Amino acid sequence: MNLPELKYDANGLVPAIAQDAATGEVLMLAYMNEEAFRQTVESGYATYYSRSRKELWRKGTTSLHYQLVKEIYLDCDLDAVLLKVEQVGGAACHTGFRSCFYRRLRDGGLEVVGEKP
Amino acid sequence: MNLPELKYDANGLVPAIAQDAATGEVLMLAYMNEEAFRQTVESGYATYYSRSRKELWRKGTTSLHYQLVKEIYLDCDLDAVLLKVEQVGGAACHTGFRSCFYRRLRDGGLEVVGEKP
Repeated sequence: MNLPELKYDANGLVPAIAQDAATGEVLMLAYMNEEAFRQTVESGYATYYSRSRKELWRKGTTSLHYQLVKEIYLDCDLDAVLLKVEQVGGAACHTGFRSCFYRRLRDGGLEVVGEKP
Repeated sequence: MNLPELKYDANGLVPAIAQDAATGEVLMLAYMNEEAFRQTVESGYATYYSRSRKELWRKGTTSLHYQLVKEIYLDCDLDAVLLKVEQVGGAACHTGFRSCFYRRLRDGGLEVVGEKP
């Protein structure tokens, strides 16, 4: 399939935001290389590139917490991706929270405000 | 003010997502260095680091489209920031669209689905 040409950075990556398609909650931010982007588009499963493991990572392969991609948006500069997803199992974060952004800054400290499904 | 220690990348940056605090719409993704993060927290105005201009960038200084920061969230790895903002003027994108993510992928092409305020 033809895909739009994204502007990958010096490491061949673009950041990708996963947002809950139903609630609008921002679930996580990860990275894609060109192959991850292609696999995401072609398979309908959010697929990232793990910078720590240096490998493609279809989210859910281990945790079964797949992300079913409903819509894909690209930004004005073509260097960021926004996925609207259905989060299988309800938790995007490996900590068990629904969103990786489960801590809010308050008075210089962090308070846990996220929920676990 | 004491601030949580973020995990900046090799270029001293973390990605920051701006989300409309009222509607949940993801408006843009930009980058912060430590000083941009500090200024954002201390001033209440979203402040980024422009990778192209290599300088701090309080969004709105030129366009008057400031982002008033309502809440700041950090992710599990402390390497991404989520700002919930009030977008002054309604348009986060320099193209005039409300969100930089105004194009949706469809059949390998891009369709404009965003709105201009």
